[in-house]
Amino acid sequence: MVLSIGVDVGGTNIVCGAVDENGRVLRKLKRPTHAHSGHSAVLGRIADMVREVRDEFQSEHEVSCVGVGIPGLVDPKAGISRFAGNLNWRNVPVVDELETLLGLPVRIDNDVRLYVYGEAVAGAGRGFGQVLGITIGTGIAAAMVMDGQLHYGYKAMAGEIGHVRMDGVEEPCACGLFGCLETVASASGMVRQVKKAILKGRKSVLQEWYPGDSIDRLSAADLSKAMDEGDILATEVLTRAGTLNGRALAAAAMVLSPEVIVIGGGGALAGERILAPLRDELFRLLLPDFREGLRVVAAEHNDDAGIIGSALYARQYHTRS
Amino acid sequence: MVLSIGVDVGGTNIVCGAVDENGRVLRKLKRPTHAHSGHSAVLGRIADMVREVRDEFQSEHEVSCVGVGIPGLVDPKAGISRFAGNLNWRNVPVVDELETLLGLPVRIDNDVRLYVYGEAVAGAGRGFGQVLGITIGTGIAAAMVMDGQLHYGYKAMAGEIGHVRMDGVEEPCACGLFGCLETVASASGMVRQVKKAILKGRKSVLQEWYPGDSIDRLSAADLSKAMDEGDILATEVLTRAGTLNGRALAAAAMVLSPEVIVIGGGGALAGERILAPLRDELFRLLLPDFREGLRVVAAEHNDDAGIIGSALYARQYHTRS
Repeated sequence: MVLSIGVDVGGTNIVCGAVDENGRVLRKLKRPTHAHSGHSAVLGRIADMVREVRDEFQSEHEVSCVGVGIPGLVDPKAGISRFAGNLNWRNVPVVDELETLLGLPVRIDNDVRLYVYGEAVAGAGRGFGQVLGITIGTGIAAAMVMDGQLHYGYKAMAGEIGHVRMDGVEEPCACGLFGCLETVASASGMVRQVKKAILKGRKSVLQEWYPGDSIDRLSAADLSKAMDEGDILATEVLTRAGTLNGRALAAAAMVLSPEVIVIGGGGALAGERILAPLRDELFRLLLPDFREGLRVVAAEHNDDAGIIGSALYARQYHTRS
Repeated sequence: MVLSIGVDVGGTNIVCGAVDENGRVLRKLKRPTHAHSGHSAVLGRIADMVREVRDEFQSEHEVSCVGVGIPGLVDPKAGISRFAGNLNWRNVPVVDELETLLGLPVRIDNDVRLYVYGEAVAGAGRGFGQVLGITIGTGIAAAMVMDGQLHYGYKAMAGEIGHVRMDGVEEPCACGLFGCLETVASASGMVRQVKKAILKGRKSVLQEWYPGDSIDRLSAADLSKAMDEGDILATEVLTRAGTLNGRALAAAAMVLSPEVIVIGGGGALAGERILAPLRDELFRLLLPDFREGLRVVAAEHNDDAGIIGSALYARQYHTRS
């Protein structure tokens, strides 16, 4: 069997896994990124993890190539990470350095694109020709896989649905704009909304769970728990996030006409708490012809979609060339 | 020289032209559609026009194929016009019937897609890899040409930007939804807004030009003339249409990342009166990285883009197969 290795580089952890041709993860490693140690040290750690996974399978299986998902702006053709804020990387020649260290073909791309690619070819989007995927995490981003091919757009910048301006939203965004979808509808946006409301005196069970300064430990998962206990604030914030994501997706869907929309990222772990209002708003705003047949589903491999997509993407290119 | 023939079928007129490989129109015919006569009679008229154009060049040039742009829902693979409201067509097998009549290979597609294709390969989008085109006419629709290939989406429904819900717009749309972009920002939407305002007592020079019931003869071109004379109502309506188109395009552009946006259709004849506010709003809402390099341009062959696109599209398929 021929395997490929997928790597997902986050600001906190690096995840690395051996993946078979069907997208099954055979072995997975997770280590801290230690981004402050600089890009050479991080790339060295990635190479160590890839070797460790490869060595385990080398006797039985061929490991053909490595795919690496990196946050931020990536130039997949040049093999360069243009800008990754949470890694503090700028113009890092990832492919050159990793190929030298590993002696294996390496492909890189933006992490969200590879996550959506993983879901499109081996997850919730499998079998559909036109897949639109969105990740609701620290930010919100999208990617489109058309007949098995990722869409990049000019300068490989496609997918910035998180920065679409939403009427009625006034929050400033880290990007410099105002009212961006992700300021209130991402996982961190929802947490920020709840904290802000509590500081303004809104009552919530979350205030009892995290009294005083401990509110800083509040996570998106807590909002789901609070909603299940009937907390009005958590319910409002999750519902509004679902509605706003649905609204942004309705506009994108009428321009792109996907057959399936896959919702992933940490925010999607809220499940129907966020998906139900998302679907309601999306279908309310779609032309009747678009409502027929369009599916909205949660990601299947929420934790592993990144390494699956990275591995299968590298494999696709390696097989082709 | 090998020529192909492009046909643009509208509710009022059929335009047919011989086009060379560079998208130059060598001869053009325009005849009334007489849609009420039924689809067989209309297809017969199209065949007559194609023959007339072909016979003119037959002695010197080979005519290889015919492309036909049809409004509404078209299934280009099956060669069937699924639904064209203003032609009163439903499931008309256009390719079969025309190929029988003409003995030439025929390709059909939605008229807006072929218009944008014409602009993308032989007009204002020439030389750009990722072209997003929009036509501001009776309705508003978009199409995307990526590396020379049209994007279709599921059920070939991509491009319905005219039905994106705009906050602050409450008009009912013919599609059954409310607040669709095209209800106020299309050419006919602008005319409707002006008429409505005049009926409500707003002052405008257009009321002097078209007193009483003659207001029904008001056209989008009149709005441009009125704006040039300083008319406040016409200026407001054109500016708002530009702003709303810019807002819808900003959302689409951040998801798709086009390199150039081509603005066409009758509404684009207003030129900078509508393009200036469109650009202002678009660039105001784009992420900084998207602002750099993105161009927004008026269509180059506004009148002929339909037949150029139809002819070159048929040629692309004919050459490939």
